[in-house]
Amino acid sequence: MTQTSYPLYPADLKPELELRIGKIRSQFRHLGIDALLLADNSNVYYAAARFFRGYVYIPADREPLYFVIRPQGFEGQDVVTIRKPEQIAGILAEKGYRIPQRLGLEFDSLTYSDIERLGKCFPDSEIRNGSDAPRVARMTKTEYELKLMEADGIKQTECYRRVPHLWHEDMTDLELQAEIERVLRLQGALGYTRTSGNLMEINMGSVLHGANADAPTPYDFAMGGAGTDPTLPVGADGSIIHPGETVMIDMSGAFNGYQTDLTRVWKVGDIPGLAVKAHDCSRRILHTLEKEALPGVKVADLYHRAMQIVEEEGLEDYFMGHVQKASFIGHGVGIQLNEQPVITPRSRQILEENMTIAIEPKFVIPHVGAVGIENTYVVTPEGLRNLTPFPEEIAEI
Amino acid sequence: MTQTSYPLYPADLKPELELRIGKIRSQFRHLGIDALLLADNSNVYYAAARFFRGYVYIPADREPLYFVIRPQGFEGQDVVTIRKPEQIAGILAEKGYRIPQRLGLEFDSLTYSDIERLGKCFPDSEIRNGSDAPRVARMTKTEYELKLMEADGIKQTECYRRVPHLWHEDMTDLELQAEIERVLRLQGALGYTRTSGNLMEINMGSVLHGANADAPTPYDFAMGGAGTDPTLPVGADGSIIHPGETVMIDMSGAFNGYQTDLTRVWKVGDIPGLAVKAHDCSRRILHTLEKEALPGVKVADLYHRAMQIVEEEGLEDYFMGHVQKASFIGHGVGIQLNEQPVITPRSRQILEENMTIAIEPKFVIPHVGAVGIENTYVVTPEGLRNLTPFPEEIAEI
Repeated sequence: MTQTSYPLYPADLKPELELRIGKIRSQFRHLGIDALLLADNSNVYYAAARFFRGYVYIPADREPLYFVIRPQGFEGQDVVTIRKPEQIAGILAEKGYRIPQRLGLEFDSLTYSDIERLGKCFPDSEIRNGSDAPRVARMTKTEYELKLMEADGIKQTECYRRVPHLWHEDMTDLELQAEIERVLRLQGALGYTRTSGNLMEINMGSVLHGANADAPTPYDFAMGGAGTDPTLPVGADGSIIHPGETVMIDMSGAFNGYQTDLTRVWKVGDIPGLAVKAHDCSRRILHTLEKEALPGVKVADLYHRAMQIVEEEGLEDYFMGHVQKASFIGHGVGIQLNEQPVITPRSRQILEENMTIAIEPKFVIPHVGAVGIENTYVVTPEGLRNLTPFPEEIAEI
Repeated sequence: MTQTSYPLYPADLKPELELRIGKIRSQFRHLGIDALLLADNSNVYYAAARFFRGYVYIPADREPLYFVIRPQGFEGQDVVTIRKPEQIAGILAEKGYRIPQRLGLEFDSLTYSDIERLGKCFPDSEIRNGSDAPRVARMTKTEYELKLMEADGIKQTECYRRVPHLWHEDMTDLELQAEIERVLRLQGALGYTRTSGNLMEINMGSVLHGANADAPTPYDFAMGGAGTDPTLPVGADGSIIHPGETVMIDMSGAFNGYQTDLTRVWKVGDIPGLAVKAHDCSRRILHTLEKEALPGVKVADLYHRAMQIVEEEGLEDYFMGHVQKASFIGHGVGIQLNEQPVITPRSRQILEENMTIAIEPKFVIPHVGAVGIENTYVVTPEGLRNLTPFPEEIAEI
């Protein structure tokens, strides 16, 4: 292979990228910026349909420019190969681009050192936090993005169908997880869970059973688990799954740049009535929200509605954790596992058509395990459309 | 399980943590700080021997304090449970800790927004970049850390011994990788590769063969690969491994909070003499450096020595990549895959006893694949001690 030139993105994706850039740009006025320079990996991917090392410069009034450091060899009139960001302002001037008065940078995902360096590249611009522009744009998905997430949902549910076939008696949670991971990887799962922020670190997901479901985690996940090592304190802890326990499977749905989030629960032998009752309550919550979560509804109201049902059933002690509770019942999902909106009682966001949200009303039953289901949905005028349809009952594994 | 109190770290690790804190503190004068507040996940783990959500406050002259947000329930006179960082300064004052004149924060790993928020929590302190304190401290390992890395090396080489047994004809690189990942996970690998910065994203490693070895990546890895998706453009691309190709295995050695880095190459059928010659050159480089890389030697000299051997053999065109070249031949390794020092021609660092470095002189032979080996070493007064001993020849897979 010799060095050849190739397009940064397929030509037929140009309209899709224009749509995304337009969505990003629509936030400029609100943020008080007249240009945005993106460098965060997920945002670069969003704006280019592929990840490269470099920057995407989006002015308010002209075509975006892709400044690529690595790899070299991309062609296209909107692609500029650079060695370092200090070259960007000069190249903009050469190309007749106006230097922005107020430039947005990603304060919420780039390091302080990165922002300091980029700020110095634009000494005549006022630097502002532009993180919300891609964050808000990415909250609602395009038809193209939804197709990718639909594909994720199909593959993820295919894998979940195989879970009972991967099980054998006296298996540890880690052994079961390793077999699920193998199936996912052979199906094409990336093996990498892209998350936002530093408060979620995880491998390909979580298999939770018995007492370990009640082990608190430092991370912002809905459920806990001790993990197998104090560096990664979440999920499976390597213990044997025993009769009378539930096994909650919440494993990766990332087969392309996007991902779906799906949780189902199996059981080994008989489980207490409380666990079944809580699981049915989770289903009731989801079935209710599937109808009521319409565009225009307050995100916080989804949380309140769920809590109302939980209180009707008297299950507050177990909802969203027992020893330690999560403060949300769902979250946006897309390029990253944890996107906006987050379904909390304090959310000020309003549901919009084509938001994609994972809703996960879950319960921890002490000594038994976790129960409840999670689906990834698209918000539509007819209610939530499920991207991860799969039988909801607690079946024998 | 009910909420119980438990120690943040095992009592017998207290001397180890004091040693680490002392190493961090020894950088204060050079950085011009009189206290440091750590929040980066890897640094919190280093200073506490476990990860929690919160902050480690290290003053120059008193005991460190562990401010824990989540999970709750840790006990110990050096542990303070908080809800938010805005509480820290007040608690320090209550406890009679002096408010620092110059406080170090991790500018190189926390986001701009995080640093802004933390800076406001200390309005009377000058805020400086303290990233180098834990970075330099972590460069050399304690005996305890070395034991963890030795354990990683043993498990990783055990897995590599099974590689030929995982292989079958007409396998894709992804299929082979999935089988290796399964073995690693069943051995207790965390399934999560902790890296520094945003320029390395990867699953459990890289299986590279044939033309894909020459596909350039945007990431800072030594080798490339197209990956299976444009979001994660590195490593295996899902193609079938053919006779006449080499298969380079560079998979995770992370079984605890630390990790080792190990690369070996197998072949399918006959491979060209050039590939064998380059592989032998890699071995010659490592055997030379194993003797010459002593405490006090300039890190840059390791690079120059390697290049000298490559030039003697006339293999420059293939060294550290072909279409795209990496600018280093090795790197520190420990809690993160990519630590200091990095072995580049411009490094100003000096080798010190108990540094742990992965050296990976590799070559890409067009259409054939990648060759060369990588070991993780400890720097000792007698030369490099190999944590990943494994046969070096290119064997038939």
